[in-house]
Amino acid sequence: MAVLAVDFGGTRIKLGLVNSGKVIAQEVLPAQSDEPLAQRLEQVANALEKLCEHRGIDPRTCEGIGISYPSIIDSSRARILDHFGKFGDASQLDLRGWARQRLNLPLAIDNDARMALIGEWRFGAGRGCDNCVIITLGTGIGVSAVIEGRVLRGVHGQAGILGGHITLRHGGGNCVCGNVGCAEREASTSVINRLAHEHPDFNHSALAAKSTIDYAAIFELAEQCDVCALSFRDLSLQVWSALAVNLIHVFDPERVILGGGVMGSAKFILPAVQSYVNQHAHTPWGKVRVVASELGDRAALLAGEWLVQEYLEKSIENESLELR
Amino acid sequence: MAVLAVDFGGTRIKLGLVNSGKVIAQEVLPAQSDEPLAQRLEQVANALEKLCEHRGIDPRTCEGIGISYPSIIDSSRARILDHFGKFGDASQLDLRGWARQRLNLPLAIDNDARMALIGEWRFGAGRGCDNCVIITLGTGIGVSAVIEGRVLRGVHGQAGILGGHITLRHGGGNCVCGNVGCAEREASTSVINRLAHEHPDFNHSALAAKSTIDYAAIFELAEQCDVCALSFRDLSLQVWSALAVNLIHVFDPERVILGGGVMGSAKFILPAVQSYVNQHAHTPWGKVRVVASELGDRAALLAGEWLVQEYLEKSIENESLELR
Repeated sequence: MAVLAVDFGGTRIKLGLVNSGKVIAQEVLPAQSDEPLAQRLEQVANALEKLCEHRGIDPRTCEGIGISYPSIIDSSRARILDHFGKFGDASQLDLRGWARQRLNLPLAIDNDARMALIGEWRFGAGRGCDNCVIITLGTGIGVSAVIEGRVLRGVHGQAGILGGHITLRHGGGNCVCGNVGCAEREASTSVINRLAHEHPDFNHSALAAKSTIDYAAIFELAEQCDVCALSFRDLSLQVWSALAVNLIHVFDPERVILGGGVMGSAKFILPAVQSYVNQHAHTPWGKVRVVASELGDRAALLAGEWLVQEYLEKSIENESLELR
Repeated sequence: MAVLAVDFGGTRIKLGLVNSGKVIAQEVLPAQSDEPLAQRLEQVANALEKLCEHRGIDPRTCEGIGISYPSIIDSSRARILDHFGKFGDASQLDLRGWARQRLNLPLAIDNDARMALIGEWRFGAGRGCDNCVIITLGTGIGVSAVIEGRVLRGVHGQAGILGGHITLRHGGGNCVCGNVGCAEREASTSVINRLAHEHPDFNHSALAAKSTIDYAAIFELAEQCDVCALSFRDLSLQVWSALAVNLIHVFDPERVILGGGVMGSAKFILPAVQSYVNQHAHTPWGKVRVVASELGDRAALLAGEWLVQEYLEKSIENESLELR
């Protein structure tokens, strides 16, 4: 049986039909996150129905709908707990009620970094490794952990996923999260443009001629020995490396998976982080491997199937407990 | 039935007879950690037997022996994985074999910060709270976490307990653990004496007249507006507070328990950390409470009973699985 999978991103909503670890059909919608989520979900449902129709599948015969969403999520109640200025009505919605009414399907939802890790853990760069951590280097920095084969969630759904918001520069800048000197505040796409403009060498840097300053530009110009780009490249590699060591020290993983758009520059990032981890992580049992994510956008869709099945299994367990 | 509990500390070994969450008899031995552990364990066994004798208890009728030890521990195999220059033979010992031969008892062992948290969680400052973290401010900084009612251990036994070794000052000093800018390296009893001597105002400070510089002296002289003491007090409070926020962001606890000898100055530490946490922790669900540990030395002894019972329950589960 197939699962309907939905991955809400910053600019796009990715939809997929997933069956037995394979994305058998997919589609993309613009995010339009200034609209109410209730409205956007209707268009998502319409698009999912079309996707099914093209494949000759009745959506009501699917196992369920699995959603990846960039927020703190109460996955047991399927509630979105924070909205970060997007889809302002998100935390008011009864998503399970909506899915039952609109599609007659069970619904499961979890945080996007957690979904990326679930996908990689079951089907990608974390395959066969029940102790792994992901760091997604994108607009922000997402983190998640699987420890001894269990997805770390925490009582309020925020365990692991705020890993990009641990202070690693005492006296650092104020982060959007309320904390200071977080990895996301010191080295992510969300801040690099502003930080570059504040750099004393900015006007002498080729970065000044770029219309957008992102990590692709930083790594490209650092190769050409642009002083400003070099300083951001080196600082950012140190921040991401220190973050990796911090996560190793708190979660005890055997593998650290690096994902997200910034990993377009993986050939510079992977060896730097691996080398720093080898040098600074206290792991008397051996070496933690630092690897690149393998599934890209597919990770969250594949995780959608896993999440629905986890939810259905738990529901059956709970029912049988109630019947005892 | 009673449990024999042993708590290996830096200078003392604390022994106890524990029954139903109460320490019914206790004893202290000097640590003598330059001796082989095999030899020290014999004296521990002798002292435990005497403790039982005084109470009219046959040690062989006890449930088991539960040990708290300052190292990374493989609790499933009861092996000490790291020695940190103490009891050099520790990692070679088959502790379960020893306990079976010497006392005819099952043995369980875990890391000291984890044991302090288990004690506080079941019987002290964490009572009724299945999501809590401990920070022990002593010679070093110990950390441990209970998440959704489970003691966090990790596949190599080091999850949680290296929380004092997350970089929170980028570019900070080299820590004994191999990492840089760790909380323990920036603000703990193990470094404060050296850091004080390096301070530019040290010779003008009343600290220079102290034979030992510890946090009691720092807090006392800071009250008298000693500039050097004030700067260490403020820096250390910030480091411990930032550590608390970092642990909240990774482990999602409802309560942070502060323990260890430095908490003799709790009246200065608790309000500072609570206020920083209120300001900087991202917890849309509510406020994390910062509280002082309640049990002191008794925490690890009480945890000894819990640990033995956990081990016996797991053994029964494993046996019944094997019989299926």
